[in-house]
Amino acid sequence: MLENLLSLLDRYYDEMVEIRRHLHQHPELSFKEYKTANYIAAYYEKLGVTDVRTDVGGNGVVAKVHGAKPGKTVALRADFDALPIQDEKEVPYKSTVEGVMHACGHDGHTATLLVLAKAIHELRNELSGTVVFIHQHAEEYAPGGAIAMIEDGCLDGVDVIFGTHLWASVPVGTIEYRVGPIMAAADRFEIKVQGSGGHGAQPHRTKDAVVTASQLVLNLQQIVSRYVNPVEPSVISVGKFVAENAFNVIADTASLEGTVRTFSEDVRDQIERDIDKAAYATCALNDSTYTYKFHRGYPAVINHKEETEYLVSVASNLEEVKHVVETEPQMGGEDFSYYLRHVKGSFFFTGAKPKGVEEAYPHHHPKFDINEKAMLVAAKTLAAATINVHAEAKTATNV
Amino acid sequence: MLENLLSLLDRYYDEMVEIRRHLHQHPELSFKEYKTANYIAAYYEKLGVTDVRTDVGGNGVVAKVHGAKPGKTVALRADFDALPIQDEKEVPYKSTVEGVMHACGHDGHTATLLVLAKAIHELRNELSGTVVFIHQHAEEYAPGGAIAMIEDGCLDGVDVIFGTHLWASVPVGTIEYRVGPIMAAADRFEIKVQGSGGHGAQPHRTKDAVVTASQLVLNLQQIVSRYVNPVEPSVISVGKFVAENAFNVIADTASLEGTVRTFSEDVRDQIERDIDKAAYATCALNDSTYTYKFHRGYPAVINHKEETEYLVSVASNLEEVKHVVETEPQMGGEDFSYYLRHVKGSFFFTGAKPKGVEEAYPHHHPKFDINEKAMLVAAKTLAAATINVHAEAKTATNV
Amino acid sequence: MLENLLSLLDRYYDEMVEIRRHLHQHPELSFKEYKTANYIAAYYEKLGVTDVRTDVGGNGVVAKVHGAKPGKTVALRADFDALPIQDEKEVPYKSTVEGVMHACGHDGHTATLLVLAKAIHELRNELSGTVVFIHQHAEEYAPGGAIAMIEDGCLDGVDVIFGTHLWASVPVGTIEYRVGPIMAAADRFEIKVQGSGGHGAQPHRTKDAVVTASQLVLNLQQIVSRYVNPVEPSVISVGKFVAENAFNVIADTASLEGTVRTFSEDVRDQIERDIDKAAYATCALNDSTYTYKFHRGYPAVINHKEETEYLVSVASNLEEVKHVVETEPQMGGEDFSYYLRHVKGSFFFTGAKPKGVEEAYPHHHPKFDINEKAMLVAAKTLAAATINVHAEAKTATNV
Amino acid sequence: MLENLLSLLDRYYDEMVEIRRHLHQHPELSFKEYKTANYIAAYYEKLGVTDVRTDVGGNGVVAKVHGAKPGKTVALRADFDALPIQDEKEVPYKSTVEGVMHACGHDGHTATLLVLAKAIHELRNELSGTVVFIHQHAEEYAPGGAIAMIEDGCLDGVDVIFGTHLWASVPVGTIEYRVGPIMAAADRFEIKVQGSGGHGAQPHRTKDAVVTASQLVLNLQQIVSRYVNPVEPSVISVGKFVAENAFNVIADTASLEGTVRTFSEDVRDQIERDIDKAAYATCALNDSTYTYKFHRGYPAVINHKEETEYLVSVASNLEEVKHVVETEPQMGGEDFSYYLRHVKGSFFFTGAKPKGVEEAYPHHHPKFDINEKAMLVAAKTLAAATINVHAEAKTATNV
Repeated sequence: MLENLLSLLDRYYDEMVEIRRHLHQHPELSFKEYKTANYIAAYYEKLGVTDVRTDVGGNGVVAKVHGAKPGKTVALRADFDALPIQDEKEVPYKSTVEGVMHACGHDGHTATLLVLAKAIHELRNELSGTVVFIHQHAEEYAPGGAIAMIEDGCLDGVDVIFGTHLWASVPVGTIEYRVGPIMAAADRFEIKVQGSGGHGAQPHRTKDAVVTASQLVLNLQQIVSRYVNPVEPSVISVGKFVAENAFNVIADTASLEGTVRTFSEDVRDQIERDIDKAAYATCALNDSTYTYKFHRGYPAVINHKEETEYLVSVASNLEEVKHVVETEPQMGGEDFSYYLRHVKGSFFFTGAKPKGVEEAYPHHHPKFDINEKAMLVAAKTLAAATINVHAEAKTATNV
Repeated sequence: MLENLLSLLDRYYDEMVEIRRHLHQHPELSFKEYKTANYIAAYYEKLGVTDVRTDVGGNGVVAKVHGAKPGKTVALRADFDALPIQDEKEVPYKSTVEGVMHACGHDGHTATLLVLAKAIHELRNELSGTVVFIHQHAEEYAPGGAIAMIEDGCLDGVDVIFGTHLWASVPVGTIEYRVGPIMAAADRFEIKVQGSGGHGAQPHRTKDAVVTASQLVLNLQQIVSRYVNPVEPSVISVGKFVAENAFNVIADTASLEGTVRTFSEDVRDQIERDIDKAAYATCALNDSTYTYKFHRGYPAVINHKEETEYLVSVASNLEEVKHVVETEPQMGGEDFSYYLRHVKGSFFFTGAKPKGVEEAYPHHHPKFDINEKAMLVAAKTLAAATINVHAEAKTATNV
Repeated sequence: MLENLLSLLDRYYDEMVEIRRHLHQHPELSFKEYKTANYIAAYYEKLGVTDVRTDVGGNGVVAKVHGAKPGKTVALRADFDALPIQDEKEVPYKSTVEGVMHACGHDGHTATLLVLAKAIHELRNELSGTVVFIHQHAEEYAPGGAIAMIEDGCLDGVDVIFGTHLWASVPVGTIEYRVGPIMAAADRFEIKVQGSGGHGAQPHRTKDAVVTASQLVLNLQQIVSRYVNPVEPSVISVGKFVAENAFNVIADTASLEGTVRTFSEDVRDQIERDIDKAAYATCALNDSTYTYKFHRGYPAVINHKEETEYLVSVASNLEEVKHVVETEPQMGGEDFSYYLRHVKGSFFFTGAKPKGVEEAYPHHHPKFDINEKAMLVAAKTLAAATINVHAEAKTATNV
Repeated sequence: MLENLLSLLDRYYDEMVEIRRHLHQHPELSFKEYKTANYIAAYYEKLGVTDVRTDVGGNGVVAKVHGAKPGKTVALRADFDALPIQDEKEVPYKSTVEGVMHACGHDGHTATLLVLAKAIHELRNELSGTVVFIHQHAEEYAPGGAIAMIEDGCLDGVDVIFGTHLWASVPVGTIEYRVGPIMAAADRFEIKVQGSGGHGAQPHRTKDAVVTASQLVLNLQQIVSRYVNPVEPSVISVGKFVAENAFNVIADTASLEGTVRTFSEDVRDQIERDIDKAAYATCALNDSTYTYKFHRGYPAVINHKEETEYLVSVASNLEEVKHVVETEPQMGGEDFSYYLRHVKGSFFFTGAKPKGVEEAYPHHHPKFDINEKAMLVAAKTLAAATINVHAEAKTATNV
């Protein structure tokens, strides 16, 4: 069956591109992906797939294709939310929504999974077991969609799960894997500095919240460089700094929001405390106060050994996959971690570097783009993993 | 006539409060003060003052009351725009407009001038000469309204001009004056830091604009503390720092906006250059770029000697004025400076410290308020200055 | 007599240069100026001046020349200590003492006063009254020599005092004066940051005192730029930062030493407190501790009105003095302030800008130098002030 | 033989302590360890060991004990230099040398090796093969002593080498090992900031080198936190910051010296460049210049697999060794790396945590101390590794 499936994917590649570009032009923010969810559901309906649930744990969509023959249940997951970034690319399929953009490739994930579903559905008479297509909302914003979709039953009956991320820094044709921790714990923090506003010409009668928050941003850098054990990878990034005043009004407050990445729970705890200490001391310097919230986000993604090695073996057999390489742990977070706490499985990266560039724009960059050919590689790798599970299962049964 | 006028002002004090509170509840931003201008024009219409021009140099309103007897032409000026500040006071007359507030007392200036006009209009048969009531829009935002109103003729025929600012840090009953420079040159600058955005977990693949701009804010502080001659007063304040991203997206850009205050043109020039150097070097550190604009704002307010001494003498004779004191130069800017480049005159501060507080909230603070009794002191001082000009003029003629 | 005196000064100018260059080559640090004091005393001995006291309040030397006629007692003061600076000039008279240098012109002050004493001594038969030559040690280092010399009687019987500072930024031929505050209060502070040292490769097991102290240096800058009223001149400079460790040892401690300059006692108090707050908060950020000492130094130099105006008038009559101009208050400190608390007098600046340079190296710079011609201008101005006091006194008596 | 040897070590433990305390009281700086080298040579002379070379590659001492039977040549290395740190402990064996201290345990290394040599020498009739005792000078300061001692032949004929570091953070009884990279590349850098000095009261006429260097220290922190890939461990520490001026003299220059630790050559190169960029930009901000030198120090210590596993096995058999655990890579550098580039071997840590403390003072701390019992554990582990090599070799020969 795998050969037929791979051929179908080749044949439907243009549709994959079309879907991806449509989604790219119509991005929606996390937890607000109503139209995208409708689009996905409508696609399944048109295919004739009947076992489809919408509003799973929020805006999630779960479709199942049941094979004619008995077998295991394999889940495949794609996320479909976008980011609050202004698209700065000059391409025909540029985002049409002001300040919102698919800057992480989730549009590609969704297109990949939909077309893979179409092909598997077409071949369902040859299929042993069931394939569960998990279209997850809200991967970009904690608490994420995964946890709610799992509670809402999306993993019920699932034996194994696979997921991939299109990865723009890696050439098309490369699959990157890792046994154990592959992605970091990703936490969010908010700090609101409360100074005392006033006239821009009278700094001595105010507590300048812009100055205080600027110092705090720099003091946070020092946690990583001085306070954390240097052999423990960690990141603290302030993504948002807002003190919106008239130019001649000294800021009463300034709001910071950022992310923390760690692999060790001890370091995670330390950084939570150290940010508080930095905020305390920086505000003490400026007679100011603050509020601080640390929101624990996704835990580290820990791939299962057997399933990851299995994935490596099936990927290595695909013509399109030129290299299967072990990756370093990535500082990025992913709520795929929750699925792997419930069922066995593996999460991997599919090279998606745009053609002809020395270096791709990083994920979350306003000019981020992917090489769409990567979707075909991703689809085939997931296809091979899915079909072979059944094959292997059979073999195993035979023995 | 002055005695009658002062009595009328006492009688109309409640109306002054009423007008001020109405304006306080309906603040409008600089250059957008359409309703306030209409309100002012309607007030004059209701009084029966016929020599009224609207849309003077923008939203300005100029009303003239012609006395029955010949005499000099005295202009009195009040500004009427508000600030982009969220009102955080708990009072019945709190601003009803989200994010806009009369946090500088211009509502009081306007109420003072309207009621003074009403009283003078009533006594116009006793009046020698003409009084020009200049209601100026857009004092808070350069280029300000004064320059356009002057070009549009508001000073035509004017012999002398007076203006005051209600001053919350000074007790009611005190008038503060200064010969020569009383308020600073007030310039505005904008810096946009252009880094290279990306995923919050991959700082090494980005140029973090939040970190760069935070460093720049601190480096700007050093211009004042290290580069400028310490005997030359100067201020650099960044009022606005905006890098609006998802918490886990490293900022591509950050926008700063701020104000510079100086008394010396040399220091003004130096700071304009030094900000550029600081932006250059800070961006070089972070492989980033920037755009920088320095907008020259109002020049220093330079009071004329004779008119200021005259003002001191008339103020000292008023019962409500307990203290007339020389003030230090103030770092705040005022486009009253332009009027004084065209005609002789003086600008002074009228104490307006709220009752029962140790220290008033500074101007431009979200909880700023004034003691409304100050309006009566201001009105009487302006009244005395206006009427005595004529008296003096007469005396002079007699001699 | 003045004419003769001025002629003698012209004649002895070469000796003045010789003395200055000798002193320049043999500088001594504050409170350790033993050889310089001996040199001065020996000079008077050679002149035949017999009323000489050494070891006055330390290393001070006081010589008196008594005129043949009765009259007032005028004191003239010159300081003679040097600075812990490495001389980096390339001149034949370069300092021969490693790390010590006359980088403030006190060598010139001393040469000026010695040669002036020689000339006055020569003309003592024409002299009315007494001239007291105060050679003060230790002006550069608080508590300074003045206070001890006064306690030791150097001002006993003195009616009026004059002193000058050679001023390298001002052209030769210019005398700068000011009634009231001419030089700032000059205080010294010491901060020792106590972190916790350790191996350079294990920052997380230490409290890095170099990082803490570096942050503190920058946080101190902010006191001037944000916390002090911008119309009040103030300076905080850290001159010394020492954390002397092996390159791979994280510092246990770091020592800072610096100076504060103010004109207002309120601001002086505020800065003393604000430095403490900055040290506290910066150490809190880094889990470190500190000790802090603030040593009040010289108060502001406040010139007496009558004596200053008198000085202006006599200086204006000298051929060598081309310009007599009012100066801005200077941020530098001077213990001449103490003399002016006991007797009337005036302290002024004598332009000493080196020939042919666009801009002189500032005082305390390793390449600092003076134009030696300035010594002649200083000597003549002091001469004129001294002689005319007697003349005036006489005139006054006549009347 | 091993049993006898271990017994002898127990018997000589008191001498080990005595030697260590003697050395602790007489520390010498790197490349200046003349007395220590003499002490070591004298010890061997007293033992009657005749094959001793002094001045090997500098101050190194190499002694050889030749066994009565043929066998392999095993080298054991101990370093013996101290650090420029003031001893702040209160113990009878406190350093007697002002500002110099054995704050890294090299005194213990030397005592361990000397007494082990004494015991092996006593049993030389039972010994198969040769043991080379390498007493290395100058481990603390690049280029270190190892490279010169190797060039001077200290490894000639050596088959395998072992070395250990007493490790105060690890309990006595624990041996820590690691196959592959166990210690980081350790580089040194020097930056001299050249500003323009001047009077502390006139910052605007100077370029303040203390402020510039303080900013640079903080900007260097950012290289680790923002510019380097967070999964690549790296450290930048500034150990020395010297701007030695009078408190009221703004610094002309400031000197920084520090260390960089990395495991990857790419990151090492990047940091070398990034420090330069930080220095450039920070100086540009302050119109200053700089010189920068980056001295490549020791490369990473890379343990050989077979020898490390062998060490683990012999250590595990010792009664005193309670735990043999794999360690994380350490950020510290060691010039033991050079020996391992020439011959096979392994470097390990011997737990030396002082009794009764919650947490030991870190290496290079002014209060650093070791538990002397650790010397016995180290000696026995090295003894076992040495003797068993011969035993193993014999076994192998037999087969």
